[in-house]
Amino acid sequence: MKAILVIADGMADVPLKALKGRTPLEAAEVPSLDEIAKKGICGLVDVIGPGIPPGSDTAHLALLGYDLIESYTGRGALEAIGSGVDILPNDLAFRCNFATVDADFIVLDRRAGRITSEEAATLTAAIQESIKMNPPEVGDILFTNTVQHRAILRLSGPKLSAFVSDTDPHRTGQKVLQAHALDENPEAEHTANVLNTLTLQLHDALTDHPVNKRRASNGLPVANAVLFRGVGTLPELDPLSLLYGIHPAAIAAVPLVKGVCKAAGMRLINVEGGNGTYETETKAKAQAAITSLQRFDFVLVHVKATDLASHDRNPQKKIQMIEKVDVLVAYLLQHIDSEDVFLAVTADHTTSSVKGEHSGEPVPLAISGPNVRRDDVGEFGERPCGRGGLGRIRGVDLMPILMNLLGKAEKAGS
Amino acid sequence: MKAILVIADGMADVPLKALKGRTPLEAAEVPSLDEIAKKGICGLVDVIGPGIPPGSDTAHLALLGYDLIESYTGRGALEAIGSGVDILPNDLAFRCNFATVDADFIVLDRRAGRITSEEAATLTAAIQESIKMNPPEVGDILFTNTVQHRAILRLSGPKLSAFVSDTDPHRTGQKVLQAHALDENPEAEHTANVLNTLTLQLHDALTDHPVNKRRASNGLPVANAVLFRGVGTLPELDPLSLLYGIHPAAIAAVPLVKGVCKAAGMRLINVEGGNGTYETETKAKAQAAITSLQRFDFVLVHVKATDLASHDRNPQKKIQMIEKVDVLVAYLLQHIDSEDVFLAVTADHTTSSVKGEHSGEPVPLAISGPNVRRDDVGEFGERPCGRGGLGRIRGVDLMPILMNLLGKAEKAGS
Repeated sequence: MKAILVIADGMADVPLKALKGRTPLEAAEVPSLDEIAKKGICGLVDVIGPGIPPGSDTAHLALLGYDLIESYTGRGALEAIGSGVDILPNDLAFRCNFATVDADFIVLDRRAGRITSEEAATLTAAIQESIKMNPPEVGDILFTNTVQHRAILRLSGPKLSAFVSDTDPHRTGQKVLQAHALDENPEAEHTANVLNTLTLQLHDALTDHPVNKRRASNGLPVANAVLFRGVGTLPELDPLSLLYGIHPAAIAAVPLVKGVCKAAGMRLINVEGGNGTYETETKAKAQAAITSLQRFDFVLVHVKATDLASHDRNPQKKIQMIEKVDVLVAYLLQHIDSEDVFLAVTADHTTSSVKGEHSGEPVPLAISGPNVRRDDVGEFGERPCGRGGLGRIRGVDLMPILMNLLGKAEKAGS
Repeated sequence: MKAILVIADGMADVPLKALKGRTPLEAAEVPSLDEIAKKGICGLVDVIGPGIPPGSDTAHLALLGYDLIESYTGRGALEAIGSGVDILPNDLAFRCNFATVDADFIVLDRRAGRITSEEAATLTAAIQESIKMNPPEVGDILFTNTVQHRAILRLSGPKLSAFVSDTDPHRTGQKVLQAHALDENPEAEHTANVLNTLTLQLHDALTDHPVNKRRASNGLPVANAVLFRGVGTLPELDPLSLLYGIHPAAIAAVPLVKGVCKAAGMRLINVEGGNGTYETETKAKAQAAITSLQRFDFVLVHVKATDLASHDRNPQKKIQMIEKVDVLVAYLLQHIDSEDVFLAVTADHTTSSVKGEHSGEPVPLAISGPNVRRDDVGEFGERPCGRGGLGRIRGVDLMPILMNLLGKAEKAGS
């Protein structure tokens, strides 16, 4: 027995006036999602807990069965791992932005006009040189750019602490913040000092860099500062293979979700064209999922684009993206052996197209496959699934439910 | 965004033969409650947990989102706070009854024939005098009557402990109990001794009091003893304002619920005529709720009369009281801006008109307001709400769900 779990990021929503009181999922044409609902058993999932808006990191940890209090150690490290940066226990990882600041360190653009990945790479080389020349008191520093204005800072050494505040003011018009210690330990103070030193050092390295001179002469915002936020450490998760005796893989495009999956011991499968944007090639992901089933018995397929549309408060775009998920699922339905493979579809959280933000309403779930307790639900949606046979469950309940279907659940007692 | 939460005490019930298998709520004419169900999303709430009959104190703590194991420190202090008695950390507060005892301290009437508040006030003055004259070994004693036969005893001092038993035998025909220590600490023994000394001292102060002589000559039970029960200490609750970033108020008549709300940092709004009895002026409460919305963004409205009718095992009276709640809700519906204000209606517990007691069945809940995931439920009742889109939740889930709707929920992770 095998299973594919499709997680469409932020696919769930609230009823919208523009859609005559339907949610984007309810308004979309999704014959394949409906088929899973029809053949299978449905329910609602409080991914973290009732009313709690999940982050994408905590949501995926919960859906993979991890207790958040034990497992969540901040976004920075998860995103770093997902970007291919090696993170060891005790390393600190920060999410970084190239940004534009004025002479007083007031942030003018938190993304430096979304500089290109090529420009960022050139600036990163200069930063690496600068860090090498003037090492602050820390064992080992790695700074690496990822996509466009995004980058990762990794600090290693015995005198570090994750109890430090961000330097990113999270809005324009405000000064770059001084990092400060969040507890009494000298390590926290030391780490804050390292960040504050780096802020100045990187500003010096960037200010007169040829890339920025060229951008300035073209009237583009310069990338003359780096903002640090979202510090994290490596979560110590028992791998899914150990917890459930499965051989798991994940197909995901965004670094954060890749990081969670990797931390959970899932093999990452890269898919050409599956890049987390509106143009993402969902069918290529579906093909990769089917191929992976030859070697793996649990494959997670993550689709990001649904979430982007709701952050953009664009219900019509969201409907299109949901219909792309349906194309992906159609391919899966056509190519799996339905007597051997369970197919589960859900979302990691509700994203409200009204608020443009993650929201705490539960998400729909449908599971089809051999001998599931099929219910009366004939349509995949927030409200139809609420009438399903699974009732209202929690995110951490999903893996035990799937593992039971796969025959991988251990009996409690005898 | 704002919210009004209406809690009708003990409104939920069980199906009754006298009502042809309907509950009082299902049998009542409640067009406005039905309107909230119709416009909104419904569910069932296990206020404490499945099958557990809640007290009114624990129920309100849970519905306000507090973990009972951390927050519940006994009824005495909550009722004292709600009666306007100042309770400091380490103070002990007891609920007290004026009672009638014979020469052997056998309880003949636990309520001394429900003496008037005026008589109780006169007797209280004598008690205060007696305590002043013969202070037992305790820092500071306050005895104060509240309504009819009810009173509060507050003990302060460094050598006290809440681990003491009641002196109230909780039934007639039994002797007033000796308080005894419930743990090994000398403070508990000392506190028990204080109570036992007070029992004798107060009996002496009351026995020949003119009020009792007059009652005896009129053939009424005398108030010649005071029974102590329900010891409690001040719960240390994080205020709702801090937990959720709201500015909350409460409209309630009974001291216990007022105490819970005050302990949760809610501003108490007094309403003329809203006095917790059958005659309570529900419309005045509704008007006060609407007015309060100008200054507060979360208003709890508590109605007691529904509970009284079920303790009296009077389903017809209960139906009348439920229909009064409907009048209250009708006023709210007419006067709120439904695009800005969420309206939630529930009960704090089921009170069975068969048993005449609190019972462990879940209570119905309906929430209307902008962009809620409206379901198919068209009627407010125990069973219709059980088919609603909220499914079956716990009492502690209600506040997170409401806070998410208000946009006050904090994201878990990022």
